[in-house]
Amino acid sequence: MIRAGVVGANGYAGAELVRILAGHPEVTLTVLTSRSYAGTAFDQIYPAMAGWVDLVCEPFDNDSLCDRTDVIFTALPHKLPMEIVPGLIRRGKKVVDLSADFRFSDPDRYESVYQPHTAKALLEKAVYGLSEVNAATIRKAELVGNPGCYPTSVLLPLVPLMQHKILEPGSIIADAKSGVSGAGRSTSLTTHFCEANESFKPYKVEGHRHKPEMDEILSLAAGEPVEITFVPHLLPMTRGMETTIYAQLARPFRYTDIQNAIIDYYSDCKFIRILEKGRFPDTRSVRGTNYCDIGFIVDKAKDRLIIMSVIDNLVKGAAGQAVQNMNLMLGLEETTGLNIPPFPL
Amino acid sequence: MIRAGVVGANGYAGAELVRILAGHPEVTLTVLTSRSYAGTAFDQIYPAMAGWVDLVCEPFDNDSLCDRTDVIFTALPHKLPMEIVPGLIRRGKKVVDLSADFRFSDPDRYESVYQPHTAKALLEKAVYGLSEVNAATIRKAELVGNPGCYPTSVLLPLVPLMQHKILEPGSIIADAKSGVSGAGRSTSLTTHFCEANESFKPYKVEGHRHKPEMDEILSLAAGEPVEITFVPHLLPMTRGMETTIYAQLARPFRYTDIQNAIIDYYSDCKFIRILEKGRFPDTRSVRGTNYCDIGFIVDKAKDRLIIMSVIDNLVKGAAGQAVQNMNLMLGLEETTGLNIPPFPL
Amino acid sequence: MIRAGVVGANGYAGAELVRILAGHPEVTLTVLTSRSYAGTAFDQIYPAMAGWVDLVCEPFDNDSLCDRTDVIFTALPHKLPMEIVPGLIRRGKKVVDLSADFRFSDPDRYESVYQPHTAKALLEKAVYGLSEVNAATIRKAELVGNPGCYPTSVLLPLVPLMQHKILEPGSIIADAKSGVSGAGRSTSLTTHFCEANESFKPYKVEGHRHKPEMDEILSLAAGEPVEITFVPHLLPMTRGMETTIYAQLARPFRYTDIQNAIIDYYSDCKFIRILEKGRFPDTRSVRGTNYCDIGFIVDKAKDRLIIMSVIDNLVKGAAGQAVQNMNLMLGLEETTGLNIPPFPL
Amino acid sequence: MIRAGVVGANGYAGAELVRILAGHPEVTLTVLTSRSYAGTAFDQIYPAMAGWVDLVCEPFDNDSLCDRTDVIFTALPHKLPMEIVPGLIRRGKKVVDLSADFRFSDPDRYESVYQPHTAKALLEKAVYGLSEVNAATIRKAELVGNPGCYPTSVLLPLVPLMQHKILEPGSIIADAKSGVSGAGRSTSLTTHFCEANESFKPYKVEGHRHKPEMDEILSLAAGEPVEITFVPHLLPMTRGMETTIYAQLARPFRYTDIQNAIIDYYSDCKFIRILEKGRFPDTRSVRGTNYCDIGFIVDKAKDRLIIMSVIDNLVKGAAGQAVQNMNLMLGLEETTGLNIPPFPL
Repeated sequence: MIRAGVVGANGYAGAELVRILAGHPEVTLTVLTSRSYAGTAFDQIYPAMAGWVDLVCEPFDNDSLCDRTDVIFTALPHKLPMEIVPGLIRRGKKVVDLSADFRFSDPDRYESVYQPHTAKALLEKAVYGLSEVNAATIRKAELVGNPGCYPTSVLLPLVPLMQHKILEPGSIIADAKSGVSGAGRSTSLTTHFCEANESFKPYKVEGHRHKPEMDEILSLAAGEPVEITFVPHLLPMTRGMETTIYAQLARPFRYTDIQNAIIDYYSDCKFIRILEKGRFPDTRSVRGTNYCDIGFIVDKAKDRLIIMSVIDNLVKGAAGQAVQNMNLMLGLEETTGLNIPPFPL
Repeated sequence: MIRAGVVGANGYAGAELVRILAGHPEVTLTVLTSRSYAGTAFDQIYPAMAGWVDLVCEPFDNDSLCDRTDVIFTALPHKLPMEIVPGLIRRGKKVVDLSADFRFSDPDRYESVYQPHTAKALLEKAVYGLSEVNAATIRKAELVGNPGCYPTSVLLPLVPLMQHKILEPGSIIADAKSGVSGAGRSTSLTTHFCEANESFKPYKVEGHRHKPEMDEILSLAAGEPVEITFVPHLLPMTRGMETTIYAQLARPFRYTDIQNAIIDYYSDCKFIRILEKGRFPDTRSVRGTNYCDIGFIVDKAKDRLIIMSVIDNLVKGAAGQAVQNMNLMLGLEETTGLNIPPFPL
Repeated sequence: MIRAGVVGANGYAGAELVRILAGHPEVTLTVLTSRSYAGTAFDQIYPAMAGWVDLVCEPFDNDSLCDRTDVIFTALPHKLPMEIVPGLIRRGKKVVDLSADFRFSDPDRYESVYQPHTAKALLEKAVYGLSEVNAATIRKAELVGNPGCYPTSVLLPLVPLMQHKILEPGSIIADAKSGVSGAGRSTSLTTHFCEANESFKPYKVEGHRHKPEMDEILSLAAGEPVEITFVPHLLPMTRGMETTIYAQLARPFRYTDIQNAIIDYYSDCKFIRILEKGRFPDTRSVRGTNYCDIGFIVDKAKDRLIIMSVIDNLVKGAAGQAVQNMNLMLGLEETTGLNIPPFPL
Repeated sequence: MIRAGVVGANGYAGAELVRILAGHPEVTLTVLTSRSYAGTAFDQIYPAMAGWVDLVCEPFDNDSLCDRTDVIFTALPHKLPMEIVPGLIRRGKKVVDLSADFRFSDPDRYESVYQPHTAKALLEKAVYGLSEVNAATIRKAELVGNPGCYPTSVLLPLVPLMQHKILEPGSIIADAKSGVSGAGRSTSLTTHFCEANESFKPYKVEGHRHKPEMDEILSLAAGEPVEITFVPHLLPMTRGMETTIYAQLARPFRYTDIQNAIIDYYSDCKFIRILEKGRFPDTRSVRGTNYCDIGFIVDKAKDRLIIMSVIDNLVKGAAGQAVQNMNLMLGLEETTGLNIPPFPL
């Protein structure tokens, strides 16, 4: 059995990693760390997990952690991972980092929205963990920078289309909506039940720090600079993310051109479900799963594409994709531990 | 006191009319009709209203209704109003119709999305009840076609900008999100709690029948044909509608140009609140009110405007605007009966 | 116009006071205080209120506050009011305190669940503000201790029955359920959207500090010591409280005996609605209102009464009842400013 | 592989059966029937299941169904199963019926709340499928009457206590709260999003037809007639059921007496989790799982027990327990196919 550790197990992404790994047939969870809950049994923080995990959260200690693990997930706020990941890599561990710290190949882009990067040497080694897009390089990676939830929802429908030059790069608009769990477990007015419930609003319209991440990958796929317009909104629900993307067609492509481009690109990808014509995705259908469902329509009169994706922000947008990446890194079947029948409601 | 009747009082728009009129200082509710609840006391259908309304719902009867009312609200599914409104107008009643039947000046446009129109003669008389935009003509109207909720949320931010030729007409994209009450009180899988709760999805992406209504008014405001892209989505909450609109600027207008255009247009309008720079609207802030809150940002690099509006779909998007229109038609102060302090949560 | 101040205006009870007072025809809001938001305009904290309140929150200052107000609401966590209320009373102000500090006539009972009381002298002056029960003494009071939300929901149905010796005092069980807003605006895991949403749970089963408050008033009504069993639960919704109470009948009373006892007791009380036989209350019907709806049933086989009440925890359970008490203290009609038609949904 | 069929697959319990069976390692789903969706692919009704089930719903046909299945789940409204189950049994199939039709050993009790029973002969054969309580007889059963959700939540905490004569039989009060999915997928005002959302209410206070089912099993456990007081309430959430039970102790039992009685009874039961002292259950912790979590407290002053249980009404309260019963009937490990790590949120 592969021994896995989760650094920052008390947060929502961390807890979701624990959930998935607790059911993973090839992995045994050996270490959970948490600064704020050190000394507390994990199932006291998440009573749902009683009977599934009997680990006690411990403070982070590089050597102690590395002695007892083969693969490590770091589920911490950005800036902390770049301090600790180098030590883990030095000990030869495979690492999937769920923060932004190792997502960028260009440190300037990172520093433009976060803060100075103190582990730039690792950026070359790190692979951007958009599993379906970068599977080949992820398989060989020691360190994966796991994508943000918004980038995952925007990039999965767009990357094949950018590669095929189907869209006008300057015309892309992504209107995204996320459940509250995307804001994490730390308390704030934004995540207060009475402030989020029965309400809907745009936020960070002036600029969300996930946007440079999208621009970098889209530019790479298009082979030319791409800058999209991106507006996130907060949904009054726990899990789920929907993105409706609008873009001008570079030429008058037909529905089937686009359909073929996407279907071909994702032909072997079990977690990407392309909906049939006339069907559009619903966050409910992917809740708790690692799926990304995609539907689209072409407005011929305007040569405009409307393409929609849904994911569970905590699964395909975080912990699920992280485990998918681990599977690839370890040479396991990509879907191992992620094949759980979806809930009908 | 003005005597008012509500035809179709059992639906959500009807019930919301009853709520507002029950607190209106110049109006007394005299007749409520309902086909399905004829013979039932209104406060048995809506126990909240016990002590406020002691009317029993009756079947619709033109003469009986007209004998006891001065102004009549028809809150019925489209097609029914065009059968009964002519009789009410013939009796000299002021009528606000909440369906689509009297919203269009061009019957072809109506017939393209609904069905043959059987009261075309009245279309010339009818005024489109977007209160702030058409106040002058509404004041003189006998019959008002009250706007749909989506059109209200799209048109209020856009009309001033179209009049000032600030936007490229072909570039407008409206990504709208509505609470479930917009679907009305009739039961269906769409409105089943377990299907709508904890879920978010686009719907009618291939074409929503509110779109021609928006196109007609925007074309009128722009003085040239306008066709927008419109995608509605369903929110897991009861009340509230948010629309995020994306459009290219016709020229490189600045933030203050746009701000001035909107502020000037709505200078005397108490129900339009333009948010200060850097603030964006939230459906929570207008829940239960007749307000439309508007915020926006200009993306200078792309000469793109992002403008957002929020309304309560049942109030400014239906019953509230209907009462506002009645106030105008009767020469009352526009805000009468609608001036209720908003709930902080 | 009566000049009113709200101390602690930023919390949910404070904001709800601002909402109600902003629409109160006899009152003008002159001072809002807030420690954490001093210097911030109230409508920046609650954008819903833009156009309704243009006050800026200020730090608390006894003299400055008293110079500009006639009546003062203190909406602070317990312990703070007993420090500042004596100064307000000394200046001759009428005070309604929404904390527990002036609810108890017996300081020992207070101290058993809170902390040492430092303004015991005022306890004799203070009147317990259960409006319908203590209207006569509230009218003459300078200081009212406004009831807790749970006690309001438990006491209103029970007080008439205790006075009539209808129930066995030792048999009373109150199973209460509250919306999340009852926990206030301060952030915590309990009120985190993702922890409260789609979940339901009992809490403080071992003892809630509202229980002694209920016991004191019930004992007074019964003329003998009463101790109830009380279990609160947390509902996944913002506003609303329902309490289902189970008790043995002292004798085999009939439905009409109980009905008469309650109806007689509340005959002049506009905010108490006794539902007809076979109807049971729903929190939706009182949301945003000052109503308490009561329904009940008698299980003859077991001589057991099941009686249910619903209130909006922020209105009848806090700010609404506080304004009702102010009305009584000032000799105004009890319902002034509270007569707003309820929302049908 | 065991071949399984689900009759009534389109309802929520049916769909949940499909979800669980789609992941069951020893079972292959071979037939799904649905009257209203005959001819429709199951994953068109529940798009979540795309890629998991490629069956098309068919009309019910006894022979066709029996030819292709070994075990059959009937997930239909009561009355229908008693018409079709005899035919299935005659063909030698193992049947788990999720309706009330085969839950009662006493047909009179059934007929007192449902309608005349037309398959009384089978009642003797049928075993009440409260898995932990009746495991031994379920193992030998051909036909299991799967318990209702409310009875499951009430009986699991109470049966051990009744057997040990710990409680006064006449004193038991169960205050139960259920998520909306308990009402099934058929549309009605009760399940309309806008009627259920942000609301909480008791219902069927005058008598719920699950009560006789509880009384029958409790009487059996106690060895004497038991009649409880039972009040169900509707929660504004999709899944989950909490029941708070109040009862007088027959003698002054201590906490540990009760704890031991329950722990001993459920010592081998993986789906029953007894919470440690001072902890109380939360529906969130069992959502999507087959667990029943139980917590309790003793009020020594009153010799009163307060015991609380939570289940997912669709899993342990319906489809999960049904599969657990199938496992027992087929000699499989009881937890097969039900061992899915719970979601932390």
